[in-house]
Amino acid sequence: MNPEGIRKLLQQVRAGKLSPDDAVQRLRHLPFEDLGFAKVDHHRALRVGMPEVVFSERKTPVQVAAIFERLARHGKNVLATRATKEQFSAVKKVSPAAKFVVEARAIVLRRDRKRYGKGLISVVSAGTSDIPIAEEAVVTAELMGNQVQRLYDVGVAGIHRLLAHRKSISRARVVIVCAGMEGALPSVVGGLVGVPVIAVPTSVGYGAAFQGLAALLGMMNSCASNVSVVNIDNGFGAGYVASIINRL
Amino acid sequence: MNPEGIRKLLQQVRAGKLSPDDAVQRLRHLPFEDLGFAKVDHHRALRVGMPEVVFSERKTPVQVAAIFERLARHGKNVLATRATKEQFSAVKKVSPAAKFVVEARAIVLRRDRKRYGKGLISVVSAGTSDIPIAEEAVVTAELMGNQVQRLYDVGVAGIHRLLAHRKSISRARVVIVCAGMEGALPSVVGGLVGVPVIAVPTSVGYGAAFQGLAALLGMMNSCASNVSVVNIDNGFGAGYVASIINRL
Amino acid sequence: MNPEGIRKLLQQVRAGKLSPDDAVQRLRHLPFEDLGFAKVDHHRALRVGMPEVVFSERKTPVQVAAIFERLARHGKNVLATRATKEQFSAVKKVSPAAKFVVEARAIVLRRDRKRYGKGLISVVSAGTSDIPIAEEAVVTAELMGNQVQRLYDVGVAGIHRLLAHRKSISRARVVIVCAGMEGALPSVVGGLVGVPVIAVPTSVGYGAAFQGLAALLGMMNSCASNVSVVNIDNGFGAGYVASIINRL
Amino acid sequence: MNPEGIRKLLQQVRAGKLSPDDAVQRLRHLPFEDLGFAKVDHHRALRVGMPEVVFSERKTPVQVAAIFERLARHGKNVLATRATKEQFSAVKKVSPAAKFVVEARAIVLRRDRKRYGKGLISVVSAGTSDIPIAEEAVVTAELMGNQVQRLYDVGVAGIHRLLAHRKSISRARVVIVCAGMEGALPSVVGGLVGVPVIAVPTSVGYGAAFQGLAALLGMMNSCASNVSVVNIDNGFGAGYVASIINRL
Amino acid sequence: MNPEGIRKLLQQVRAGKLSPDDAVQRLRHLPFEDLGFAKVDHHRALRVGMPEVVFSERKTPVQVAAIFERLARHGKNVLATRATKEQFSAVKKVSPAAKFVVEARAIVLRRDRKRYGKGLISVVSAGTSDIPIAEEAVVTAELMGNQVQRLYDVGVAGIHRLLAHRKSISRARVVIVCAGMEGALPSVVGGLVGVPVIAVPTSVGYGAAFQGLAALLGMMNSCASNVSVVNIDNGFGAGYVASIINRL
Amino acid sequence: MNPEGIRKLLQQVRAGKLSPDDAVQRLRHLPFEDLGFAKVDHHRALRVGMPEVVFSERKTPVQVAAIFERLARHGKNVLATRATKEQFSAVKKVSPAAKFVVEARAIVLRRDRKRYGKGLISVVSAGTSDIPIAEEAVVTAELMGNQVQRLYDVGVAGIHRLLAHRKSISRARVVIVCAGMEGALPSVVGGLVGVPVIAVPTSVGYGAAFQGLAALLGMMNSCASNVSVVNIDNGFGAGYVASIINRL
Amino acid sequence: MNPEGIRKLLQQVRAGKLSPDDAVQRLRHLPFEDLGFAKVDHHRALRVGMPEVVFSERKTPVQVAAIFERLARHGKNVLATRATKEQFSAVKKVSPAAKFVVEARAIVLRRDRKRYGKGLISVVSAGTSDIPIAEEAVVTAELMGNQVQRLYDVGVAGIHRLLAHRKSISRARVVIVCAGMEGALPSVVGGLVGVPVIAVPTSVGYGAAFQGLAALLGMMNSCASNVSVVNIDNGFGAGYVASIINRL
Amino acid sequence: MNPEGIRKLLQQVRAGKLSPDDAVQRLRHLPFEDLGFAKVDHHRALRVGMPEVVFSERKTPVQVAAIFERLARHGKNVLATRATKEQFSAVKKVSPAAKFVVEARAIVLRRDRKRYGKGLISVVSAGTSDIPIAEEAVVTAELMGNQVQRLYDVGVAGIHRLLAHRKSISRARVVIVCAGMEGALPSVVGGLVGVPVIAVPTSVGYGAAFQGLAALLGMMNSCASNVSVVNIDNGFGAGYVASIINRL
Repeated sequence: MNPEGIRKLLQQVRAGKLSPDDAVQRLRHLPFEDLGFAKVDHHRALRVGMPEVVFSERKTPVQVAAIFERLARHGKNVLATRATKEQFSAVKKVSPAAKFVVEARAIVLRRDRKRYGKGLISVVSAGTSDIPIAEEAVVTAELMGNQVQRLYDVGVAGIHRLLAHRKSISRARVVIVCAGMEGALPSVVGGLVGVPVIAVPTSVGYGAAFQGLAALLGMMNSCASNVSVVNIDNGFGAGYVASIINRL
Repeated sequence: MNPEGIRKLLQQVRAGKLSPDDAVQRLRHLPFEDLGFAKVDHHRALRVGMPEVVFSERKTPVQVAAIFERLARHGKNVLATRATKEQFSAVKKVSPAAKFVVEARAIVLRRDRKRYGKGLISVVSAGTSDIPIAEEAVVTAELMGNQVQRLYDVGVAGIHRLLAHRKSISRARVVIVCAGMEGALPSVVGGLVGVPVIAVPTSVGYGAAFQGLAALLGMMNSCASNVSVVNIDNGFGAGYVASIINRL
Repeated sequence: MNPEGIRKLLQQVRAGKLSPDDAVQRLRHLPFEDLGFAKVDHHRALRVGMPEVVFSERKTPVQVAAIFERLARHGKNVLATRATKEQFSAVKKVSPAAKFVVEARAIVLRRDRKRYGKGLISVVSAGTSDIPIAEEAVVTAELMGNQVQRLYDVGVAGIHRLLAHRKSISRARVVIVCAGMEGALPSVVGGLVGVPVIAVPTSVGYGAAFQGLAALLGMMNSCASNVSVVNIDNGFGAGYVASIINRL
Repeated sequence: MNPEGIRKLLQQVRAGKLSPDDAVQRLRHLPFEDLGFAKVDHHRALRVGMPEVVFSERKTPVQVAAIFERLARHGKNVLATRATKEQFSAVKKVSPAAKFVVEARAIVLRRDRKRYGKGLISVVSAGTSDIPIAEEAVVTAELMGNQVQRLYDVGVAGIHRLLAHRKSISRARVVIVCAGMEGALPSVVGGLVGVPVIAVPTSVGYGAAFQGLAALLGMMNSCASNVSVVNIDNGFGAGYVASIINRL
Repeated sequence: MNPEGIRKLLQQVRAGKLSPDDAVQRLRHLPFEDLGFAKVDHHRALRVGMPEVVFSERKTPVQVAAIFERLARHGKNVLATRATKEQFSAVKKVSPAAKFVVEARAIVLRRDRKRYGKGLISVVSAGTSDIPIAEEAVVTAELMGNQVQRLYDVGVAGIHRLLAHRKSISRARVVIVCAGMEGALPSVVGGLVGVPVIAVPTSVGYGAAFQGLAALLGMMNSCASNVSVVNIDNGFGAGYVASIINRL
Repeated sequence: MNPEGIRKLLQQVRAGKLSPDDAVQRLRHLPFEDLGFAKVDHHRALRVGMPEVVFSERKTPVQVAAIFERLARHGKNVLATRATKEQFSAVKKVSPAAKFVVEARAIVLRRDRKRYGKGLISVVSAGTSDIPIAEEAVVTAELMGNQVQRLYDVGVAGIHRLLAHRKSISRARVVIVCAGMEGALPSVVGGLVGVPVIAVPTSVGYGAAFQGLAALLGMMNSCASNVSVVNIDNGFGAGYVASIINRL
Repeated sequence: MNPEGIRKLLQQVRAGKLSPDDAVQRLRHLPFEDLGFAKVDHHRALRVGMPEVVFSERKTPVQVAAIFERLARHGKNVLATRATKEQFSAVKKVSPAAKFVVEARAIVLRRDRKRYGKGLISVVSAGTSDIPIAEEAVVTAELMGNQVQRLYDVGVAGIHRLLAHRKSISRARVVIVCAGMEGALPSVVGGLVGVPVIAVPTSVGYGAAFQGLAALLGMMNSCASNVSVVNIDNGFGAGYVASIINRL
Repeated sequence: MNPEGIRKLLQQVRAGKLSPDDAVQRLRHLPFEDLGFAKVDHHRALRVGMPEVVFSERKTPVQVAAIFERLARHGKNVLATRATKEQFSAVKKVSPAAKFVVEARAIVLRRDRKRYGKGLISVVSAGTSDIPIAEEAVVTAELMGNQVQRLYDVGVAGIHRLLAHRKSISRARVVIVCAGMEGALPSVVGGLVGVPVIAVPTSVGYGAAFQGLAALLGMMNSCASNVSVVNIDNGFGAGYVASIINRL
């Protein structure tokens, strides 16, 4: 509730152009629309200047399409994460320009192609199984106007693979590191660069990996001080955090 | 291992000024000193342009003082976290200019007072019990050359306390949020601002708080996309991450 | 075992109308019927003046229908939760007046439409994925004779969405709050109202949400004092607890 | 932010008695005081019409006394939970009328002795070791204006002890049940009464009790539908929830 | 390795009827057969005088049938637990007298119908969903020569259902109690009887039941001293333990 | 509530010797005394014919002594487990015949020296650190009238130590096995004997032993079918269960 | 980065056969190939003199085949673990000499049949359900040039089965032990032999086995000092570790 | 029970030099002594040719000294781990040649100084706080006749520190790696060497390190195939395993 807006409204009240009762109503009126099953929140998009996002898991194709279509009306970029082909088919009908990025399980509608990020975002993955999560981060960061560099399959058990790309990583302004199993890669990368590292534990692994818990705990305890962590398999979150950092 | 350095060395070899064997030796020589029980790593400090840090827990006063003194020789800022009065007494003898910041449990030696951070870092805490962790973040960020703003005791059960300070939070370039118990504050703050939020779960609480686990899990699952998380009670890590973001 | 009943029985014994042996038998006779695989407990329904409930998960359609039919004989409202279409088909045959409430996964048979609740019950959900659980609470509360108000998709990362409905929430005599992920919404709602808040953690989320554990722990540690918690995804329990509170 | 208040303010603006700028300021002015380390929140007390509470754990005697003294200025009842003798000594100096209830580990200042609760609150405990938690609930409920009945040491392994008091429990309008170990008592009590049961898992037990986790999980899974749960050892929370229910 | 057997063997050696080398061989020869993928252990059956058991989960129908057939050669009772219809079909071909007990998911071959148990074993279940586990216990105990009494659906939230059968339970020499959710029933039953109670946590429940963990922890912490516990859903184990107790 | 008792009472009513009102009172009168902080339950002792037990942890010396003294009035054996020297000193004053068994941390008052157990109870421990728990089982079983045999320090990594005592173990009618760390001993012992094995996980070990959790889980999953389990460090419970089995 | 290699390169530089710039390039050139989605790492194979391995889970048949084919070019043995029939079909097309070992779920291409292991590796399993994991260990060890001996279904509840094979186990130079449920077998085997024991917890079991967690914790706490542990179900890892030990 | 021994015994029986009864006795006689509270197991020492070890935690100084003295009689090396100064004082009295290695918390009595290990054992630690655990491994390996090389404080966040010592690590025949926090070091070291790596998770760290659980899980999931793991803080176990490998 922005003071300038309130001031203008109060000046209208003072000038007799607006009754106190109407003013009370307006003060309560906030910029979101109600679809019944979801409150579409343009407000957030306006505030942070970023695209609106639909988390598609547990939603029906019809629900995803309805939210997507409504969001698409405002001319912004739209992103649906964790999407299935069925959800994409439904979206495609209401928003024909939408694309499905298979490897990232994402539906994207890109209108705004402006470069908002000041530098390069590097997305690093430990193994090939981490790639879907890494690609979700890539899609998110690109849609938010960033130049993105991929560096995949450079896990710590073959440290020379990572070191061989040390120079290219060091060009990044923000680094995203996706790793499952022991989740050690962010610590090593964190020690190699002087910029923020966003760590994404993945559910890759088996047995004592406990669906990403081992990687999550490992990353929380990283001995590199420039590492912070997002949820297991949350490539979107990593791409989002990296993007807002890269705009600073 | 910087290519320019290797090139110069190779040119010396070509010019016959350096034997291949000596060159091999030099290539292996990396900038750290060995105290026996610890490898003092000036390299890292040089690389990221930041002060060196001693984690004091489980170290004897003698060990803390020895590491502190060695680090202090290079004219940089030095920080010892989780320090006790006993450790400070030992440090004081070898580094008389060191100060003890009681509420943050930190020993600091500040020489470099340059402002490195481009904007304001806001440190927010949910309750009064979270303050020691929040203060560790403050000390870290200040020592790394940032302007820091405190906003304490604004937990979500009295949401008006937070909303009353919404404007001041929105001036920050990076926000650190410390909270124990249910760890809900970062989500609410994350929804109010458009900048990166570094969440610090604290071990404040009892029973099902499980020493910060509840807060940690809550923050990992934050529904605000601009939130990333550091370890439980890791005020230092939050201050460090916020500082390197604020330098970008 | 109600003293008045025992007294009457004893007076019959004294008057010689009842032999001591028969009295012993009667004292042991309690009001439930035995279907073999389930003891249908009319007693509980009589005692608390509320409808009987079938938890349908892990039961066959035949079992659900048999229990439902037996309960339906007594003219009370009947509710089958976590029901499938197959179970409903079986119930429909023996109890044609039963209805299936799809979004709540509930089979309901409503005969008693009396208003038992003194005030309004507000059911609040954090996201659209929490709606099935919220609807289970709604169905339960309505069947138990309450007026219910829905407020969905008002999660804490867009706190203005909740605040915009603050007035309507404050009209409630009891509030139910369903939330997954970090489970922060009950704390915020609890701080806004002065009435009991029943928190329902949902299994919505992924990764470190651990099927509702993160939300459960968050709610157990709520910093709002008027919050108590039921099991993960237990919309029925929340509706039930809210209903008996609302009758007081 | 109450609409009537805003309306009056807006009417003053319209009448020219208040400038828009001043109105903006007032709209931001919320009723709490700042002690530096804690925001004393009279607002909450006003809103829910209840005493203010200090959680004393991890606070110094000086901090507890300072907060207590400030809260005591407004003539309301004041409660400090989890208090030590040292904290009480400090409080006693600034608030001589305060009393220390040893068995509940609580400091209380009672001025308002009005009966707010409409009925009786029954506090039941499984064993003698649960009594400190039960007494915290008792103190809280009494300070909030309720008549309280104690029923201790009636754990489920000697079910006749509980059944012998069935009649007295059935007089209560709200029941609080404290139990450690397997936490089974709330289910049994819940089946005996038709009113809300607030379950408090306690950390009583050893081995696989895991500091109250076993009891917490047991209570979350209660097969009695009228049970909701608060945090482990949270006698205060149970007393608070029961009190606001009893005012309805 | 039974001393009498060794003594006889040694006497044969002394008498020159057996060479030392042959004796060494015999001492190593133990009574089991090798099927390649499983060592069929007649030894155990001989030792404890009880039927041999096949745990069918994760085994192919062919493997179950092969083991079953081999065990069946010795004229003892044979039991295959956690069996599927497919496994039964395979067993039926090699052992036509085998029967499939659907509700217990068990294949049984009964030849020995002798009564080994001295008293009655009572099998009690909390809810109807616990019946498959309870029936596994029943089948096991019956096959091991015991008289078994069933008492199902007497969970603690309707304690009168249990109390109404108190007399019949008190006739048992051993009691098995199966319960999911909060797992409270063994404590209550344990308090009602003076004989050993074998508690079986079941995976019945949802949310914080965590697949039987809540019930397991509850039972481990039973405040009734005559309760011991077997694995989650281990009806067979309970039936087995109860049977060997009942033979004493 | 024993039918014979009720019958007699009813006959008195019929005979006019007892008024219905008085009968109601008597039916409610159950055999326990109220010490205020504890309901002393002679009823249980009468029912199962066993001594009464005080769990001393978290109780003050005064409380332990008061309960002990009251229990001691009835001429039965009395046992206080987990007792300290301070608690013993307090007990000694009110019950001079009480003895302190240091290694078992138990206070015992033995009057009834009758042999109730029909056979031998064998108490086996894996290591020397498990002895305090094993001794608690020994004291309990002896006080309950059993002959007990100790076999300590026979852990599975030196299997010959156990096998050397195989014969003596096989004389037992019930076996108690105490083990920490991996908790493997009950499985091996269970395979060697044909009688019930009561397994007691102990909190002995470090690191991934997690205070007995590893041993508990191991014992729950025992591949020997004659094993049932009591709580971590619950030597008393094991001794109690073994004793009631041995009376059968 | 092997010093001899660097020395040769530097000598070429000195001799003017290589320019410093080219030398810099070579120093960065490391021996792996980039397939886009995976960096094929011949380097590791060269270094440890062992076959290259593909972990097939979560990879498409096309991906497995592409990696397999590339690795197969170098004439080494190739192993794909956790493979499906579909993956094998894809591999078969590009590498016709590959074989599918069904019971081990492994695709193998064996060219190098040299015996690298100095002694015998014994692979022991507790039950028949552990065999797939044990066979994965066997396949791995054989492909790495070892003689392997199998000993299956010798779990601790029938200790005589294990002891009967004691002599054959004692011939091994390294022992691998696979066990689920309580995971006790490695401790017993470890006590019988004087060589390294590699323990593999398996996910065999149910209920409190928690998918191998019970076995894992048990093995971590083994009281036999010669036991070390690999991940749950990691037969490959055990075979690999055993093989490199056996080469020493 | 070694066949040759049995054969000789049987030949004595045949020759009439030994009665069958005496032979039975001898077959049962195994080489350990009974101290009452501990079975001193010379057998194990004889079998594996290694020193005997006392785990001192939870043992009294008197117990440690008694066991130590008994073990010392046989002229072997003796090691007491996790020892305190008080325990050492007691040992010193009965075994004056014993030494206390403070940093390893170990009491050692070294008589046998023979070199049993064929190569070098390298002990690597991530941080200075891991040194006590690492030193326990060093003491163990040295006492078992190995040459040991220390490499401390080379954690992965400063990967150049490790790489600088790559050559010296590669000289080792077995490598022990101790690390707390994220436990990533064994994976990196495992990738650098071709020999067995024994990983020791340490309880170093705080918050989500959960007393070594994070490191343990990380190491169990190591992406380097030559890594196996021992218990948290089990430096002794690592030294022991490494030693028996190094003897091969």
